[in-house]
Amino acid sequence: MAKTLARSPLAPEAFPDLPVVKGVRFATVAAGVRYAGRPDVMLAHLAPGSVVAGVFTRSATRAAPVLDCEAKIGAVTDDGAAILVNSGNANAFTGRAGDESVAAVTDAVATALDLPAARVFTSSTGVIGERLPHGRITAKIAELASALSEDGIADAAQAIMTTDTFPKGASAKVHVNGGDVTIAGIAKGSGMVAPDLGTMLVYVFTDAAMDRDALQALVARAADRTFNCITVDSDTSTSDTLLVGATGASGVTVAPEDSAFATALEDVFRDLAQQVVRDGEGATKFVTVEVTGAASDTDARTHAMAIANSPLVKTAVAGEDPNWGRIVMAIGKSGAAADRDRLSIRFGDVAVAEHGWVAESYREEMGAAQMQRPEITIGVDLGLGSGAATVWTCDLTHGYISINADYRS
Amino acid sequence: MAKTLARSPLAPEAFPDLPVVKGVRFATVAAGVRYAGRPDVMLAHLAPGSVVAGVFTRSATRAAPVLDCEAKIGAVTDDGAAILVNSGNANAFTGRAGDESVAAVTDAVATALDLPAARVFTSSTGVIGERLPHGRITAKIAELASALSEDGIADAAQAIMTTDTFPKGASAKVHVNGGDVTIAGIAKGSGMVAPDLGTMLVYVFTDAAMDRDALQALVARAADRTFNCITVDSDTSTSDTLLVGATGASGVTVAPEDSAFATALEDVFRDLAQQVVRDGEGATKFVTVEVTGAASDTDARTHAMAIANSPLVKTAVAGEDPNWGRIVMAIGKSGAAADRDRLSIRFGDVAVAEHGWVAESYREEMGAAQMQRPEITIGVDLGLGSGAATVWTCDLTHGYISINADYRS
Repeated sequence: MAKTLARSPLAPEAFPDLPVVKGVRFATVAAGVRYAGRPDVMLAHLAPGSVVAGVFTRSATRAAPVLDCEAKIGAVTDDGAAILVNSGNANAFTGRAGDESVAAVTDAVATALDLPAARVFTSSTGVIGERLPHGRITAKIAELASALSEDGIADAAQAIMTTDTFPKGASAKVHVNGGDVTIAGIAKGSGMVAPDLGTMLVYVFTDAAMDRDALQALVARAADRTFNCITVDSDTSTSDTLLVGATGASGVTVAPEDSAFATALEDVFRDLAQQVVRDGEGATKFVTVEVTGAASDTDARTHAMAIANSPLVKTAVAGEDPNWGRIVMAIGKSGAAADRDRLSIRFGDVAVAEHGWVAESYREEMGAAQMQRPEITIGVDLGLGSGAATVWTCDLTHGYISINADYRS
Repeated sequence: MAKTLARSPLAPEAFPDLPVVKGVRFATVAAGVRYAGRPDVMLAHLAPGSVVAGVFTRSATRAAPVLDCEAKIGAVTDDGAAILVNSGNANAFTGRAGDESVAAVTDAVATALDLPAARVFTSSTGVIGERLPHGRITAKIAELASALSEDGIADAAQAIMTTDTFPKGASAKVHVNGGDVTIAGIAKGSGMVAPDLGTMLVYVFTDAAMDRDALQALVARAADRTFNCITVDSDTSTSDTLLVGATGASGVTVAPEDSAFATALEDVFRDLAQQVVRDGEGATKFVTVEVTGAASDTDARTHAMAIANSPLVKTAVAGEDPNWGRIVMAIGKSGAAADRDRLSIRFGDVAVAEHGWVAESYREEMGAAQMQRPEITIGVDLGLGSGAATVWTCDLTHGYISINADYRS
């Protein structure tokens, strides 16, 4: 687990140059929660007047910090807020002791930053079932508080990594309501999950001024179209957390109906979500699954996820095998409506199957050429209605087995 | 795909010595459907007076032979029946041409055996999306019909294999209603699926005399407790077929309430189902997942399948890693009711977690010793009710990736 993994072949060339978001300051520290000699705790402080929205894992066994965040997320106060994240230990399935650790950390941050504890949000990612050594974190809070800086977001992206092979960031600037607002975010994750050291954590900040409930609605909708449309291995973390803070420091107020802001926020989410897939454990291919013509959007998503999660589809992609029979299989098992004789399938722009059989124009080498690309699109049209969905995933390779089976925890 | 795979380390020592079932005769032939130089077609003839029951894949993209079987399965006649199975080509997603191939084969068998075509059931397993070269099969029907023998069941088990690494058979003798009846069956499958050359096909025969509807009810119930409780990779075939023929040749009539027969039939099913798991692609561990204390049996099954299908649980088993956090994760994501603080987990008879945290008595080496066994039991008690379910699966290894990604079709 402490092995250093090679940087994903699907990683971007470099971490992006993220803009400062006025009203948010960051600090990181090496607290030795589990790893030695690397920053493993990050603190973000949001100025008074900020609002915070969030989306959390639906797991029935979700971790103590998630339960704490959920309890706090709906409040509206002018106090400002803080987000503290540690890597190395998930504080999940740690019984009542887990709640005590959350309280110890949030109290320490609240005291140091002169905030109510109800405005301190925490996340933990790392091993499950081991008590969080929270004393190592509380011992560093004063140091973190004194180091807060507007320029610290890139370091924060590093501190929250576990099995990630590259830090993930994205940003947007958008002109709205007569002014400019900035959005910048960071994420970690190299499975939609991998409960040991996986977990998807996402923190996005903007200097827009927004009503909290409006921001929450925007965040929930955008998350549903982005973070909820990726899958690496079909497993779901006990700790997945997305927090969005809006500081208002730009002085520009964004109304719920400002579609330019909503689009920019969703673009940042999508960029971060796709970076998580690009860092999928063992991934060598980035796969877009586009389903159209389904009886409903829900059916389209069910089909798309069945394809994206199928071990046989994912291993075919890994083997650069244009094995469209496995796509037919995944559609058949999904449980959503399908009619064999109306179904068509394409790889990129190559028609593979139509009307329940292989396309007349199709030749195996056409499909094979598509599969050799690092980025592959699988298109499916059900021919039943106007339901559509797009999801993103990666292939299933020996690298995934090595990461998850060969290294003993 | 044509590579010879090493015999599964979980295979039984030898094919069992199956008893003759009076009223059923078998023949096999090398028709060259796809493979050269090996038997790839089997024919079974059931004497007049036999009844046939069946259970089929629920895939929305099921293959032409499955659709044909489903249409015929409910009929009751005294004509006898036949089952013809080919390996090498699944006749799936072959459009209208697929239906024509089924008709050609069933008509040829009907003529050769003097049966109505409505009493001829066929299955095909192998590649998807290629037209079945049915002429190669029809050319061999006369030869098959003249070779029918009561002793041919072991050869039949061989002829239906694709990526299977061993042939699968099981039998029982049961004293019921004052007489002895025999049950013998064969199966193929090395994934609950693997749509290329996977597919689970099961044929079970008995000389009991039974009402067809009663047999169908027994078969459906027993299948739900056995074949529907196994999973290799969560994928579902377009061709899965279970056919059970009762010839009545023992002269012993079995009533629906004869529990000894029902138990014996379920035992044969379970034995065959577990053999399919033991031949799971790349399997090195046989895993029993026992869930108790769930809010309902349905919830128990949902949890058990979430654990059995989780890539992270399966890779942990492959790595002999007692990583119980991944079991917590799988329970959390299943969607069925769970309460972190009532949950307990065991490996074999070793208590691992209880009351939402690691068990006080648990030491890592105790779990590690359990995981080193070739047969592992994962026990979960939800502490919520009396719902229970048991499912069987195997681990996820480099072997699975090699079989499904490294060999191009």
